[in-house]
Amino acid sequence: MGKDVNFGKMIHGGDYNPEQWLDSPDILRKDIEYFKKAKINEVSLGIFSWAVLEPREGEYNFGWMEEMINRLYENGISTILATPSGARPKWMSDKYQEVLRVEADRHRNLFGGRHNHCYTSPVYREKVRQMNMALSEKFGKHPGVIGWHLSNEYGGECHCSLCQEEFRRWLKEKYGTIDALNKAWATTFWSHIYNDFSQVESPSPRGESGLHGLNLDWKRFVTDRTVDFVRHEAQAVKDGGSDLPVMINMMYNFRGLNYHKFQDVVDIVTWDNYPTWHKGPESHTAMDTGMQHDIMRSILKKPFLLMESCPSATNWQSVSKLKKPGMLRAASLQAVAHGSDSVQYFQLRQSRGSSEKFHGAVIDHYGGDDTRVFGEVTEVGEALDALREMAGSRTHSQAAVIYDWENRWAMEDAAGPRNKNLYYKEAVEKSYYAFRKQGLDVDVIDMEQDLAGYKIVAAPMLYMFRAGFEEKAQNFVHAGGKLILTYWSGIVDDTDLCFLGGTPHGLMDVCGLRSTEIDGLYDGETNCGVPVEGNALNMTKTYTCEHLCDLVRTNGAEVIMTYGKDFYAKMPALTCNTYGEGKAYYVCADFEQGFYDEFYRKLVKVAGIKRYIHHIPAGIEVTSRETEDAYYLIVQNFNPGSTEVRLPKGPFAVWYGEYDGTVKGFDMVVLKKSK
Amino acid sequence: MGKDVNFGKMIHGGDYNPEQWLDSPDILRKDIEYFKKAKINEVSLGIFSWAVLEPREGEYNFGWMEEMINRLYENGISTILATPSGARPKWMSDKYQEVLRVEADRHRNLFGGRHNHCYTSPVYREKVRQMNMALSEKFGKHPGVIGWHLSNEYGGECHCSLCQEEFRRWLKEKYGTIDALNKAWATTFWSHIYNDFSQVESPSPRGESGLHGLNLDWKRFVTDRTVDFVRHEAQAVKDGGSDLPVMINMMYNFRGLNYHKFQDVVDIVTWDNYPTWHKGPESHTAMDTGMQHDIMRSILKKPFLLMESCPSATNWQSVSKLKKPGMLRAASLQAVAHGSDSVQYFQLRQSRGSSEKFHGAVIDHYGGDDTRVFGEVTEVGEALDALREMAGSRTHSQAAVIYDWENRWAMEDAAGPRNKNLYYKEAVEKSYYAFRKQGLDVDVIDMEQDLAGYKIVAAPMLYMFRAGFEEKAQNFVHAGGKLILTYWSGIVDDTDLCFLGGTPHGLMDVCGLRSTEIDGLYDGETNCGVPVEGNALNMTKTYTCEHLCDLVRTNGAEVIMTYGKDFYAKMPALTCNTYGEGKAYYVCADFEQGFYDEFYRKLVKVAGIKRYIHHIPAGIEVTSRETEDAYYLIVQNFNPGSTEVRLPKGPFAVWYGEYDGTVKGFDMVVLKKSK
Amino acid sequence: MGKDVNFGKMIHGGDYNPEQWLDSPDILRKDIEYFKKAKINEVSLGIFSWAVLEPREGEYNFGWMEEMINRLYENGISTILATPSGARPKWMSDKYQEVLRVEADRHRNLFGGRHNHCYTSPVYREKVRQMNMALSEKFGKHPGVIGWHLSNEYGGECHCSLCQEEFRRWLKEKYGTIDALNKAWATTFWSHIYNDFSQVESPSPRGESGLHGLNLDWKRFVTDRTVDFVRHEAQAVKDGGSDLPVMINMMYNFRGLNYHKFQDVVDIVTWDNYPTWHKGPESHTAMDTGMQHDIMRSILKKPFLLMESCPSATNWQSVSKLKKPGMLRAASLQAVAHGSDSVQYFQLRQSRGSSEKFHGAVIDHYGGDDTRVFGEVTEVGEALDALREMAGSRTHSQAAVIYDWENRWAMEDAAGPRNKNLYYKEAVEKSYYAFRKQGLDVDVIDMEQDLAGYKIVAAPMLYMFRAGFEEKAQNFVHAGGKLILTYWSGIVDDTDLCFLGGTPHGLMDVCGLRSTEIDGLYDGETNCGVPVEGNALNMTKTYTCEHLCDLVRTNGAEVIMTYGKDFYAKMPALTCNTYGEGKAYYVCADFEQGFYDEFYRKLVKVAGIKRYIHHIPAGIEVTSRETEDAYYLIVQNFNPGSTEVRLPKGPFAVWYGEYDGTVKGFDMVVLKKSK
Repeated sequence: MGKDVNFGKMIHGGDYNPEQWLDSPDILRKDIEYFKKAKINEVSLGIFSWAVLEPREGEYNFGWMEEMINRLYENGISTILATPSGARPKWMSDKYQEVLRVEADRHRNLFGGRHNHCYTSPVYREKVRQMNMALSEKFGKHPGVIGWHLSNEYGGECHCSLCQEEFRRWLKEKYGTIDALNKAWATTFWSHIYNDFSQVESPSPRGESGLHGLNLDWKRFVTDRTVDFVRHEAQAVKDGGSDLPVMINMMYNFRGLNYHKFQDVVDIVTWDNYPTWHKGPESHTAMDTGMQHDIMRSILKKPFLLMESCPSATNWQSVSKLKKPGMLRAASLQAVAHGSDSVQYFQLRQSRGSSEKFHGAVIDHYGGDDTRVFGEVTEVGEALDALREMAGSRTHSQAAVIYDWENRWAMEDAAGPRNKNLYYKEAVEKSYYAFRKQGLDVDVIDMEQDLAGYKIVAAPMLYMFRAGFEEKAQNFVHAGGKLILTYWSGIVDDTDLCFLGGTPHGLMDVCGLRSTEIDGLYDGETNCGVPVEGNALNMTKTYTCEHLCDLVRTNGAEVIMTYGKDFYAKMPALTCNTYGEGKAYYVCADFEQGFYDEFYRKLVKVAGIKRYIHHIPAGIEVTSRETEDAYYLIVQNFNPGSTEVRLPKGPFAVWYGEYDGTVKGFDMVVLKKSK
Repeated sequence: MGKDVNFGKMIHGGDYNPEQWLDSPDILRKDIEYFKKAKINEVSLGIFSWAVLEPREGEYNFGWMEEMINRLYENGISTILATPSGARPKWMSDKYQEVLRVEADRHRNLFGGRHNHCYTSPVYREKVRQMNMALSEKFGKHPGVIGWHLSNEYGGECHCSLCQEEFRRWLKEKYGTIDALNKAWATTFWSHIYNDFSQVESPSPRGESGLHGLNLDWKRFVTDRTVDFVRHEAQAVKDGGSDLPVMINMMYNFRGLNYHKFQDVVDIVTWDNYPTWHKGPESHTAMDTGMQHDIMRSILKKPFLLMESCPSATNWQSVSKLKKPGMLRAASLQAVAHGSDSVQYFQLRQSRGSSEKFHGAVIDHYGGDDTRVFGEVTEVGEALDALREMAGSRTHSQAAVIYDWENRWAMEDAAGPRNKNLYYKEAVEKSYYAFRKQGLDVDVIDMEQDLAGYKIVAAPMLYMFRAGFEEKAQNFVHAGGKLILTYWSGIVDDTDLCFLGGTPHGLMDVCGLRSTEIDGLYDGETNCGVPVEGNALNMTKTYTCEHLCDLVRTNGAEVIMTYGKDFYAKMPALTCNTYGEGKAYYVCADFEQGFYDEFYRKLVKVAGIKRYIHHIPAGIEVTSRETEDAYYLIVQNFNPGSTEVRLPKGPFAVWYGEYDGTVKGFDMVVLKKSK
Repeated sequence: MGKDVNFGKMIHGGDYNPEQWLDSPDILRKDIEYFKKAKINEVSLGIFSWAVLEPREGEYNFGWMEEMINRLYENGISTILATPSGARPKWMSDKYQEVLRVEADRHRNLFGGRHNHCYTSPVYREKVRQMNMALSEKFGKHPGVIGWHLSNEYGGECHCSLCQEEFRRWLKEKYGTIDALNKAWATTFWSHIYNDFSQVESPSPRGESGLHGLNLDWKRFVTDRTVDFVRHEAQAVKDGGSDLPVMINMMYNFRGLNYHKFQDVVDIVTWDNYPTWHKGPESHTAMDTGMQHDIMRSILKKPFLLMESCPSATNWQSVSKLKKPGMLRAASLQAVAHGSDSVQYFQLRQSRGSSEKFHGAVIDHYGGDDTRVFGEVTEVGEALDALREMAGSRTHSQAAVIYDWENRWAMEDAAGPRNKNLYYKEAVEKSYYAFRKQGLDVDVIDMEQDLAGYKIVAAPMLYMFRAGFEEKAQNFVHAGGKLILTYWSGIVDDTDLCFLGGTPHGLMDVCGLRSTEIDGLYDGETNCGVPVEGNALNMTKTYTCEHLCDLVRTNGAEVIMTYGKDFYAKMPALTCNTYGEGKAYYVCADFEQGFYDEFYRKLVKVAGIKRYIHHIPAGIEVTSRETEDAYYLIVQNFNPGSTEVRLPKGPFAVWYGEYDGTVKGFDMVVLKKSK
């Protein structure tokens, strides 16, 4: 986690590929004219440009880029410069086969697509280093260049012999002895004991695919390998003389990499967001998207950038739906409301051919500025201009939800109570949504992050307790925190080895119970939770649960709800245990959203959380950002029509947007108070 | 496009494999007896017989075939002789591995199946040449032999290094310079620029699969390679001394090859037809099948042959349904009604083993002539005999629908407004069906064919405008033609590069509008088209549309219908523009069939098209064939029961079939008038 | 079929892997304490223990096993000792690549999973032989060891060059000449004629996959290869000096191996049973499971062992459902009711890691004996103790259903009247269930077994008549037996070559009819069977049929029911023919269960079958076992609640369980009478 970055403005821009139009100077000229009209103040340049930057080995062709950066700068437009490692030129794969990725089936890919490279290959690393240094030397001090966009959407894995060697080295460093590895992976099962690190191979559909410890460590290795590659890229940029912030563009709900591990190698978190607006109610999509924004913001707990978004319809989803009028602005400003200092698009000008030629763009194939999309982009530009003083402001959350990549990897691979679907992401969402409906800012953190600052922490389905989590959770509750745990928690340690002696491991006393069995329910099968008469939390309704029902034996916990049927009717379904100054709640089953809504509404009171807006109508999203001097209370309406909301007065004043007792459909209002 | 062929009879016969029964002379004797009984006057011999014809390399075994052809001839039965290249003997693959195909994943197949050969392999070409010449020398002048059935159902592709080399040669010939190719394929995108033709590789799931220009050219190359192979086969036959017509059997809705490209290498179009009768209403299946017949007839605009059809149930569809009584005759005569000069079966005698042993046959394993199927085949034989004077007669259509293979390849690969399904074939069908319901003969042509002779042309979803199409369309309308274009038209040129400056490219003035955006609708989502009050076409009803909605800005066109909802309510949904002497209609969305039925009913009047039967009940199909002297008006009933139809009198008289004001279920009536 | 084995007790135990806990002596000590508490009297040891038994090549480590066997023996617990060939150690695959399996795509697997070995590899065979002999020498005469569990769940196939050679040798032995093979496989079709055995290759998705004769012989070869491997393993054990019974654990509905072929190499049939209880009504699952028990018992017609079952939820099914209270005991005792002399579990103690760590176990990760599961296991132990005198007793069935692996292989590969699903297993079940509902013990046999002892035999969908079946069936009926044949029977011989001259081949006179055509019905399409007025069997109701309708022409048979619609309305749907002293029934279509229930209720009377309980309520299962002295009539209730059943008195007395006119939910009652 490097610098604190504040660009002093809200960035408005996106991916731009002038190298596709070098034979059309008219178009390039027109582009800048259009950018200014739409208040575009940044372009991301050079993504996938390697074949133009180095058309033949060692032969650099940077002139067009220099001219472009200059021209943009003269017109008040900054450049975020990409390193081109997201796709190599054909000559490189032809000459050095090792740069191409080997799949899990052990076949090496042919040239094609993008991201098709080995992160270990010394040749590839050297070629990237030379290119990055050259770019950095050439442009790193240019006043128009403000940051580095390393490669593009890192992802994927390579199983070549070089990577296998690295994996073995990584394992040796982690486990020290092969016996320790054998024990951690329980290799005695099915006679899989290794005599030596050299015997280990990466998982493969043609070989070993069921050794969970191996699978999990392989995924961790892939993340570490990628982090190491990012570090390599960043170092080359630095060695070229540039000290500008580096960033990588992350992706929605991407399982391939644990993004938290990148916290030390990037200066700003940036991500690419392509929600399917209008597929369901916009307010649902907003909730889903909001959670992803919060995941991204919580990695560094600093402002992030929305590095890519689509000004119109994408072209790679199963249906490419147009954004209805107002949607682009609402979606863009939601990012800002959740902590973004930018709204950037893929792409500024639509490419003429190949696989993304129909991806929405600010300027389309028609080429005019009299399009609906261009008008809406301009509106976003104007809004960002108006909000510029919020740049750099931060969000301080009283509530957190734990959403942990490694836990997900382990749990989904584990072959346990349900193989069809465990609904982990959904379980996290239910807690997140319930907090959001109370108007709380929410951090979405992983198990390694601190719990200390929060009043309330939900930790759904923490199947794996990574080392130290039990203590952290104990301390949190003991000191007065409110912790929510659920079914299927504390089952394995961080090598996916089952805890002996009862679960949730290490927190049985904190929760005042032990889990004895867990029932998998068939699709369509349900049970329900019935409130115990006179329960302390005053839960009043019966709620449906499905998928998984944990059967617990309490030992001190108060039973708040019980199951309504099956042989475990009357057994606990929701419990509360007082531990030190705090309370630990245990949700036994996968309850419907309504359960969480009522439960958290009551918890928020118990936890003594401060809120400025008490009644939040459906479809309204409330967030906040703060600077040292000011507090911004942001209210967005994701309903298509106007909605009545009662906003606070007193120190607060309407600072941006229109408010007459209602907020207009898809519109935003910002209240501000001084601190 | 070679000879005009007229066999002087309606051919009745099909695939026959006596080589499977050489050890059962009784059976072979019986077969001929049965053939005569069923009025079978042709057999297709030698398909897949290579292993018997050349059991060991260079060792020919033609005796059995000679005897068979002689015996058939003596019994009045002609032979269409196959070249056996559809499957090679095992000894050849074992000795010459190169004859086996390499898949896109770059693995060479093992011996097996059929069609498993490289079309480039010099060895395979030489072996085929030797065999074809030998067959031609031996049988090419035999009075019983009437034509050549080259190979069988050509298809598939090979990615071996020989084919890669040919592909590069093909590209070089097409583009001249690598820069031209780079530009055409937009390789700047994702850094895919080639420095040299030698760097190009065919598409592969393990390599490049998203470069649309490459994909499209590869498909074209595969067609050209196959055409070249057919030419090679035909030349060998010719060099062997035979001048008989050559043909290849094509397939239903086959996407792998652009059949129009075969027009110069075959003398007659022939095809294999296996509809799933009785799965839905027979009248629907008839419509679907009718369109395929018309596609085939339109390639050469001459009579074609129905080279294969099933006398009973097939064995390779998911359910092998028996044909109900009368269905075989109705299906067979439909081919004739649409221009076929034959009804041929796969197969005359059922094989005892292997993968098609349960495919329906004229003579089944039981082996008697007292089966239902044998009886129905005999009825077909009698009907064909009665219709023999129609052999060689042609169809003259006033209407055409454009259905273009290359357009389909490009559009379905393109990643555009819907990736789930674009419904191109369905869009073509809606126009075709609407014409058919008016009793029109319809040519189904591709973009390269002439528009000049037609009064009305429907061109649905012409995403790609192949070179010259805009001009041809302009001229057609200008000269008085009625042209129907739709949403998602004129988007790319023939390398799949997007047109700049607005779409439909080159026809914006003809249509009096520009398309500005296109909305993809989710499955289940709909909009509708509402007639504008007092519209010139007198459209009266509101129709549902789905999948795709084009948002157009008119510039001169009259708006006939508008959208009923969403943010584009009141925007045009159907327009008409007068251009020169003609009119261009633009259908903005994927409307239901009813829309086309009403729209085309009205268009047919506007276009001044002549029809002999004005009210055509559902399930009745009307077609025509003409000679220099006579005009045959053919009425088929695809309803199971009798249907009332009012047939024209005057110069027309009932020439074949029974008519008493009604046409019987599954029956056919032919009226004839002299010219 | 070797020894008659009677362990003198009902075995209660299962898979136990102490090698996973060698570093936890406390746990190992505790385990034995728990075993005794739960009346566990056996453990299966050494399954998958190779890597511990021989950690490095040639270095044996048997001490832990010796200590364990001793300790168990001292505590009254027997050991069934496994040979560890189910999974090899890593060092072996690393040193000798040939031990790894080659898939049908001709790629050799990497190390991983289990069962990943070639059954031909001389190295693997030698390693297995050495290990088995060493185990046998060391433990074969230990008084605590009572039998050999060879490997684990044999399965899979290998396509390596060694196996190809064996396959060719096998074919040569079978066919003698290549001409005979060509004829049997009908290789003339598609030019697949072989010149020599050396040209034959195993089926492959990359090569030949549609040559049915090849596919079928390959499957037979795979079974024979596995049998040969089992024989090799057994011989090594014997050569090591042990004469104890050998067994292999078979699987539910496993298509990969024809288990009947193992009858000569195993002494006892044992199998692994994992039904999905509670997914549907328990009585349905019981019926399905009962049939599998009966298949297993019918292989040797002797008691079998239930070698594996789950004491709680499995972890590898899509949903891991807990067994409700009482279910474990009911499921366990059902095995005994159908002829098992054991109830064994996978697993006694849950492993801590890897792919089955969440599979239910007697002792779970928590590790206490105060769990619900432990309590229910103990109840099973007590029940088995009470039933011990039934050990060794046999079942004598008056009815049999033919269920033939080779028939299934051939039919499902054949490409015939339906490719979607032929519902063979379901057809067998319908007959089986209908017999069961009458309280009959049922043998489920294959075509090679005797028909002589039965009063009634159902032979549904015998597509393939294996050599000699026609005669056997003729004799059976002629001598007074009642035979039920159905649609799609007697179509091919045992090389899958179609019979000529009519079907069902060789039984047309026995059935008094010939099948002329067969109609495949689309999903959702139905016909029905209507009873002929005054039919001899007194069938009274109309029943629905689907999927397949056979159109037969009778020649002597009495028509009992006719079709209700389609063009074959009024044609026969059920017929009966008297032949000699017996009767042959022909069911023309795939009728619903109710049809079989009524039909067989009436047949049971016609066949004069003796039954002790006349009215059997739904959910009640009646079976019997006999010794020389006693007859046990077993009544199980698979309804959750009590059910009224009228049990016989007289010589019968309640010997086990509680009966007060009702049998409790999930409970069992055994009546006994002396002989």
